[in-house]
Amino acid sequence: MTNYEQWQLFRSVHVLDIWPSSVLVLLTSSMILGFFSREIGAEFEPTIKFPQENMAKNLKLLNLRQIFKKHGLSAYVLPRTDPHQSEYLCERDERVKFISGFSGSNAYTIITEEKALLWTDGRYFLQAEKEFEEGWSLMKEAVAETISPLDWLIEHIPLNSNIGFDPQLFGYANGAQMVESLNRVSIKALPINQNLVDEIWTDRPKENYEKLIALKSEEHGEDSLKKIERVREKLVKKKCDTIILTMLDDIAWLLNIRGFDIPFNPTVISYVVITSDEVLFFIEDKKLTPELYEHLSHVKIRPYHTIGSWLKEYHESAKISKPAHKVFIPDTTNYFIGSIIGRNFSVVGPSPVQAMKAIKNDVELSGMRNSHIRDSAAHVRFLLWLKKQIDSGSEVDELKATAQFHAFRKAQSNFVMDSFETIPAVGDHAAFPHYKPTEETGKRVITKDSVFLVDSGGQYRDGTTDVTRTVFHGQNPGEYFKKMFTLVLKGHIENALMTFPSGISGIRLDILARSPLWLEGYDFGHGVGHGVGHFLNVHEGPISIGYRTGAHPEGGFYAGQVVTIEPGYYEEGKWGIRIENCYEVVKAPPLASGAENFLTFSPLTLVPIQKSLIKKELLENRHIEWLNNYHKKCLTLVGPYLQKNDFNEEYDFLVEACQLF
Amino acid sequence: MTNYEQWQLFRSVHVLDIWPSSVLVLLTSSMILGFFSREIGAEFEPTIKFPQENMAKNLKLLNLRQIFKKHGLSAYVLPRTDPHQSEYLCERDERVKFISGFSGSNAYTIITEEKALLWTDGRYFLQAEKEFEEGWSLMKEAVAETISPLDWLIEHIPLNSNIGFDPQLFGYANGAQMVESLNRVSIKALPINQNLVDEIWTDRPKENYEKLIALKSEEHGEDSLKKIERVREKLVKKKCDTIILTMLDDIAWLLNIRGFDIPFNPTVISYVVITSDEVLFFIEDKKLTPELYEHLSHVKIRPYHTIGSWLKEYHESAKISKPAHKVFIPDTTNYFIGSIIGRNFSVVGPSPVQAMKAIKNDVELSGMRNSHIRDSAAHVRFLLWLKKQIDSGSEVDELKATAQFHAFRKAQSNFVMDSFETIPAVGDHAAFPHYKPTEETGKRVITKDSVFLVDSGGQYRDGTTDVTRTVFHGQNPGEYFKKMFTLVLKGHIENALMTFPSGISGIRLDILARSPLWLEGYDFGHGVGHGVGHFLNVHEGPISIGYRTGAHPEGGFYAGQVVTIEPGYYEEGKWGIRIENCYEVVKAPPLASGAENFLTFSPLTLVPIQKSLIKKELLENRHIEWLNNYHKKCLTLVGPYLQKNDFNEEYDFLVEACQLF
Repeated sequence: MTNYEQWQLFRSVHVLDIWPSSVLVLLTSSMILGFFSREIGAEFEPTIKFPQENMAKNLKLLNLRQIFKKHGLSAYVLPRTDPHQSEYLCERDERVKFISGFSGSNAYTIITEEKALLWTDGRYFLQAEKEFEEGWSLMKEAVAETISPLDWLIEHIPLNSNIGFDPQLFGYANGAQMVESLNRVSIKALPINQNLVDEIWTDRPKENYEKLIALKSEEHGEDSLKKIERVREKLVKKKCDTIILTMLDDIAWLLNIRGFDIPFNPTVISYVVITSDEVLFFIEDKKLTPELYEHLSHVKIRPYHTIGSWLKEYHESAKISKPAHKVFIPDTTNYFIGSIIGRNFSVVGPSPVQAMKAIKNDVELSGMRNSHIRDSAAHVRFLLWLKKQIDSGSEVDELKATAQFHAFRKAQSNFVMDSFETIPAVGDHAAFPHYKPTEETGKRVITKDSVFLVDSGGQYRDGTTDVTRTVFHGQNPGEYFKKMFTLVLKGHIENALMTFPSGISGIRLDILARSPLWLEGYDFGHGVGHGVGHFLNVHEGPISIGYRTGAHPEGGFYAGQVVTIEPGYYEEGKWGIRIENCYEVVKAPPLASGAENFLTFSPLTLVPIQKSLIKKELLENRHIEWLNNYHKKCLTLVGPYLQKNDFNEEYDFLVEACQLF
Repeated sequence: MTNYEQWQLFRSVHVLDIWPSSVLVLLTSSMILGFFSREIGAEFEPTIKFPQENMAKNLKLLNLRQIFKKHGLSAYVLPRTDPHQSEYLCERDERVKFISGFSGSNAYTIITEEKALLWTDGRYFLQAEKEFEEGWSLMKEAVAETISPLDWLIEHIPLNSNIGFDPQLFGYANGAQMVESLNRVSIKALPINQNLVDEIWTDRPKENYEKLIALKSEEHGEDSLKKIERVREKLVKKKCDTIILTMLDDIAWLLNIRGFDIPFNPTVISYVVITSDEVLFFIEDKKLTPELYEHLSHVKIRPYHTIGSWLKEYHESAKISKPAHKVFIPDTTNYFIGSIIGRNFSVVGPSPVQAMKAIKNDVELSGMRNSHIRDSAAHVRFLLWLKKQIDSGSEVDELKATAQFHAFRKAQSNFVMDSFETIPAVGDHAAFPHYKPTEETGKRVITKDSVFLVDSGGQYRDGTTDVTRTVFHGQNPGEYFKKMFTLVLKGHIENALMTFPSGISGIRLDILARSPLWLEGYDFGHGVGHGVGHFLNVHEGPISIGYRTGAHPEGGFYAGQVVTIEPGYYEEGKWGIRIENCYEVVKAPPLASGAENFLTFSPLTLVPIQKSLIKKELLENRHIEWLNNYHKKCLTLVGPYLQKNDFNEEYDFLVEACQLF
């Protein structure tokens, strides 16, 4: 799946300049996209063009504005995230959806007495206009004439007035910059701990208290205590005695636990603080069992909502007892937590746990390999099932296909849940990289004449998968489609077969998958790949293969990481193509130079690529060789698994699909 | 030539974090290289390992330390640059060379009562140890165990003491960060306007008052007033009423003047301030002639050294008279100037003039094309001359070759001077990308059996050139050399033939020239290319093709820019290979997609590449096709020029060199 970059942009701190100004500061995804727009050629001009004012008749907005008065506010700023800067949210954190109707994953809103504005990106322009409740106006991110939210505030909020924000929904660096930038133009940004939307959201969903699970030693491969020691070694190098962990996948990895608080991400809402002599785990104790108390015997458990008061007390005391007391605050830490420590006692930067977690240990890698074999077997079953349905004239629509694919995955051992919402796109639905079927659109049937793109993945106890295949069941999808399919595949292979020095940043690899398209003047509007967790988030930092400039300073490529390669091409109104595999980053085989520090990609995903869609004359020998080796690996690893489970018809289908090209 | 990246790193502001800390802040090239070292795989560990203390017997150091007392200093910090953050310095600004003996282009020094430390990078480790006067110790940048200068200060300077620095030698953002970071650990960084080295440098060279020259309309293509208007339009977008220009090539471009204050760079030491209603030019009037006063009638001329007092007075008055007074301070502006305006009245960012200047107008482009034809003709003359000398048994050493090449250039019309110091490297001298012949090493003779690499360029009234060729005059340089020559050439061509969307950053192109090497486990340790000025600096921002992450936010590629492509490969102790051309960035020819926003590279440099060094079987058809087209262009454009000037033997040589491969 493809929306990792924008999410990472949203939650990361990208500072171009230490003196924030209305023009230069990059505060949120929307502003960063403004920055992007410069790179992609558009000029970023802070002029205002938004739709004619809609009189606010929306009752929610009316109620919210009533609350403004209590706090003396001219505006309220609400981004779509949670206190952990998560990409996926639990329903009770979908405040933007509640207040505006908009359900997309990227949103930043400003509500004033007269206006309700929502910034989002091009993926969602149509959807936003359709979903908006009365009184909302769209601000198109990365469009030349769109002003950034911060510039909008600076231009429209009167001097000496107050704006409010929930300090838990802003990263520390971002929040501090907003406060400082507005302060310079005599606007006060007030952190208000009680979220104002919650005050009017009377039927807000309750918290989920599902129990978490403890991973066994043979599942995680490294004891939590050892991981904690490694984090402490990193802290010493950063001259800090304490670190606050707020990212939910960092915490799950560190404590070898998994949970079910967030859809698709097996994480649990919690905080961790590591000091030089103890580890605090802030979590609702209803989620724990006796087994878990034992599993967590090395940490002190505290109620989730007491993080603030505990931290305050600890910090006050440490300032006195430790002469060089300093706290490492990952840049994703929310403003509420970060402000407790403050600037003078903190080092702010990317979470060191992110980079540690990205490099999988042998147990995790073995689990990733095994879960991908099972997941690929389920995929092969699905592809054969679909082919037979279509051949026999059965009507399979997008939703039915999704359900059947899920059932095949679910039948595999160790399956827990899908790793994200399946994208089952027929025909021109596939032209939207982030297509999401509704009850209505999902009824479109997969016919012999339609291109079908399916992007899906599973969470297994031993690994996480993410795979996209584009298939066609008729005689000939047309020469143009085949050409574009071949160029996308060629780009995929160009990336997959590269060897490169250990430690390079993913921005340097991005062009490989694009160059066959670029040479003919084509492109696609998303990154090439993202990191993948081990039974954790399907989008995992810090690595990615993409084009944004402000790369994660610890986002280098190292052996043991897992990443997707997923170039695509999208023809509006017609079809879309994407070919996505997960890869393990491995030491390169012996090279002519004898250099030992070179890496390459080894496929984890083992699902055949439809050869009848390829124009062979557009490939060079090395591409064909790669494809044949890939199919050989599919057959060698997935074949025996199918045979063992008596999926003989599927095995024959796989043999046929994996024949030499 | 290849050292652009490190220079750009040095003078740019790269801020990872708005809260500087001893660990995260990147202040200078040395620290940025520390950051680099992370990317290239080394761990950046702030532990100290420097040579055993040398008792300071160096008289200069003794004298300098005497001056410490007057100012109450524990240390003095001195980077190698000038008040304009120039890459090339005039002799009177070579303070680091005076005080330490070290003549390299990258240096950052700290002098305390006991120590004199100099940070530089791997190019200069041997040279520094050789050149150091007594009492100096080397700090190896980008080596894992080397601490950064700022961290060194934090660890070694006692609390509550003062360190001194020359505020003109620090960029505004860098200087402010140093002051703030040290302040947080109770060390006071004092800006001292009189440079302390100058106090003991009794025979410091005098200022140069050579007259500047005014470019004619048919030479520059755009009136200065129009350029100023365009800058003002940019200012309005940034909500500023004033801009300070300190980069010497920005000023030369803006005013259509050239000068001779700095070696190889046709610039003049000066400042410009553009307000909403006037333009101030701060320059020593001895450099002006009546013709120049007329040329500069649209600007007010003020003495160079009065910039500070003028700016202070202007700013105080503007604060009162203009309600939204704000000054744009390019991030290369020195700390002395920047501090006069201060944080609350400034917007700090990359100079908008840099990006404007990089896109050449039609007159400039036509001049670039013409000057490259003449320069390539001189190059062809040199190559034939060299071949004949060697064939006839004459002994040509590096210095003689350099002199002869210079003579051929000088004979061309419009020649002004070399654009940088020629690198004429025989045998293993070429393994150092930045080899500089001394009187001793320069005596090495170019033989039939030695690889000869020559990197050189010229300044012409109508353009600037930069070209590297690697040649061999014997029968066979060996299969390994030929393989590596072919891989370097293949990378060069891969880059040169790419088509890509307008506006992308050069970091995305860097892998193209490297991939043929990477696929066999080889690499080279410098960037792929740099921007080139029009009768201006041979290293011109903001564009480059390179691997550093913190790319210039305005460093996108657009039609009308000029850039080098110069991959290499260096075999220590044996030889070096580099193949460098200048290219114009042009609109791509019609592509299959019909897209109109794609660009490509069109060669400006037209010097044949030695075909007998190429292993044809390693190239694909498109590489061979590119090479044949390139040679056809060389012959078509340089051939007639040679014929017209009766260089018939040279013409025959060119015809032979340009035959189909």
